[in-house]
Order: sequence, then C-alpha cells, then structure tokens
Amino acid sequence: MTTPDPGARITARSMAIVRRELARRGIAVSPPLDAVVERVVHSTADVEYATLLRASPGAVEAGVAALRRGCAVVTDVNMVRVGISARRVTALGARVACFVGEPGVAEAARRAGLTRSAMGLRRAAELGLLEGGLAVVGNAPTALDELLRLVAQGVRPALIVGVPVGFVGAAESKAALMGVRAVPWITVEGVKGGSAVAVAVVNALLILAESHGLE
Amino acid sequence: MTTPDPGARITARSMAIVRRELARRGIAVSPPLDAVVERVVHSTADVEYATLLRASPGAVEAGVAALRRGCAVVTDVNMVRVGISARRVTALGARVACFVGEPGVAEAARRAGLTRSAMGLRRAAELGLLEGGLAVVGNAPTALDELLRLVAQGVRPALIVGVPVGFVGAAESKAALMGVRAVPWITVEGVKGGSAVAVAVVNALLILAESHGLE
Repeated sequence: MTTPDPGARITARSMAIVRRELARRGIAVSPPLDAVVERVVHSTADVEYATLLRASPGAVEAGVAALRRGCAVVTDVNMVRVGISARRVTALGARVACFVGEPGVAEAARRAGLTRSAMGLRRAAELGLLEGGLAVVGNAPTALDELLRLVAQGVRPALIVGVPVGFVGAAESKAALMGVRAVPWITVEGVKGGSAVAVAVVNALLILAESHGLE
Repeated sequence: MTTPDPGARITARSMAIVRRELARRGIAVSPPLDAVVERVVHSTADVEYATLLRASPGAVEAGVAALRRGCAVVTDVNMVRVGISARRVTALGARVACFVGEPGVAEAARRAGLTRSAMGLRRAAELGLLEGGLAVVGNAPTALDELLRLVAQGVRPALIVGVPVGFVGAAESKAALMGVRAVPWITVEGVKGGSAVAVAVVNALLILAESHGLE
C-alpha cells in the first residue's frame, strides 16, 4: 500500500496546522522536544500545551533509547494503555502494561489506603518492570506521588512521563516531579494534562524511536 | 465499607472546587446538564469546557433513560470504551462496545476509504446496536461524520455524545451535529474535546442514571 489511509492523511494535515499555529504565536521548541510538543497540541487541539510542557535535559533521548531497547511501558490507567500505539510498541519489541485492574490490586490498595492506580505502579515496581522502563502517569496524582516515593527508594525508570490532571494534587505532584534529578522526566505545568496528553507524549517517542534520527 | 476509598474522597474534593470555580466565574448551568458540565471540568481541569458544552433539549434525560433501559454504549475508540465506568454500566444492565479493532474492520475501512473508527460505527449500526443506544465519539471527526450519515438514513440512537477533537474536521462535524433535530445530542463547540471529555459525559450520565433523580 503506497496510498496513506484517511487517518494518516488527516494527521499529516493536522501536524502542518499545528506547526503553523505555533510559528504564528512565536513558539519555537528545539528538537527533539518539538516532536513531542507538536504531537500533544495535535492530540488535544489545545495550543496552550506548547507553553506548559516541560522536560528534563535529555529526557526525550532517554525515552527513545529505552523504547529501542524494547523496554516495558507501565501506565497508571487503562485509558493510557490502550491509547499507546500497539503496532509501534510491538515493532520495537517493547510492551505496555497496566496493573490498575489486575486481581488483588483493588484489595491491596484498600488495605494500604492507596488509590488503585498508585497500587498498580507499586505492583509494577515489585515485578521489576519500572527498572529501565517508561513510567507513564496520565490520570492520577496519587500514582505519580507513589512513583516519586519509589524513585526515592532507588527505583530507576528510564523516563517518567508524569502528566496527571485535576484540581486536587496534580499541580503539586508535577511540581515535585520537576524537582527530580535521578530520573529524566516529561511533564506539564499546572492542573491540566490527562490520558490524551500522556498517550500523545508516548506515541511521539515511539515515532522518534522508529525513525533514523536521534542515533 | 463505610469509609470512602482515597479516589472517591479526591473526586468529592475536586467536584467542590469545580463548583466554586464555576460560581466564581458567574457560570450557572441548569440541572440536569450541570452534572455533566461539572464532571467534564473535573476530568479535564479545564474550566473553558463549561462555556463550550452544548446539549439539545432533553438530551441528558434521553441518555439517562436509555442507560436505565440497559442500552448499548457504542464508542469510536478503545480509549473511550475503557474509560467508561464498567461497574456502573454493568449495574444498569447496559454494555459498552467498540468495533475499531474488531476483525475485518481495518480491511473494510481500507476498501471503503473510511477511517477504522468510522467503519467501526457502521459495523455497530449493521448489528443494530446504535438503535436506542448511546453513540459516543471522543476522537475521530470522521466517525461523527459517518454517524450523521447513518442518522440521515434513519438510524436512531437515543443520544449522540459527539466530542471529537482536532484541527481537521472536528469543529465542522460538531457544528453539523448541532444542526441535528432527529436525535438528541451533547457536544462541545470548536476544536477541543477528546476521549477524556467523552468519558466524563458518559460517566456523568451513568451517575445520574444510578441516582433517584430524573424519574
């Protein structure tokens, strides 16, 4: 098939509009972060994200390298898990996992006084999946809080994508993430974020990992 | 268990903040649409949605009544399918379906020159699931276009939740939805929207359907 499908054509047109909108507003982001920013604005149709996205030095490169090694991508919620391109993940030999709905997680969360998504990340750490993997939080500030606790205990994901959303705890947990030096991170300033933003970040990293750049 | 889990406590605190923020900005929405608006703002942390959400007369009531009858909830993408509260859907005897990844849909879409999500909705219509059901489009304008074509052919969902996102076709497809008189609808003005918005609308309807109001 040389003809792109309608979805691919729409994406290409949309990305051209995004680049024009960013240029018109005088927003210039350096590579390779520009690919992530453009994908988030494309997915949300919200140009504000171009000024809210933050990344630690080398974060994009670290995520791309981990994906090329076929790492685990652990998500806090299933909405993020299913939004990540399964085709691209499989092509790289990577895999996506989410433990929020796994047997025993709800009961363990209740006993520990944690949310289910926070307990899901703890379970992933117990299984060794976070070490060298992508830890992706798109929904629950409590999951990002738990992730930062695990990092303080020595767990070392290759990259944290931490973009929980909401009026309770999200801005605070993301501010704490921006203070982390031990692990690279990508996040969003303030209350906004969510599953669609998390998915867009990871899918942008997957596209970079498939391409021949960033060698 | 009488103690709410941490997730429920966070939601309650967040909803109180949302109501205060809307009041502070002088935004007043009448019941029962207020419950939908509050849930969308809670889920996105984006107060702008309070001024962008639109509904045809009686749309919320129509959706709630259909859910109480145990209708099918058909979504365009899996991110919307998995975000809808499975517990609440099951409690009402309803069910959620999404055909975007079903066998044969990709190939049929290619042959028809449609996107996979548009073909997924056509497949749901062929199976009779849209009749009296909730048709929920959170991602793809092309799926909403196809849904409007099906409605023009006589298909009658109980409610259309049409909130596709993006710079290409989303605003236009939602404007077309706002012109529909044959079927009740809930939508968002402009380019913004997405899976999280679609999920928030449906989960708000589910909570209303479980409650004793709107009898």
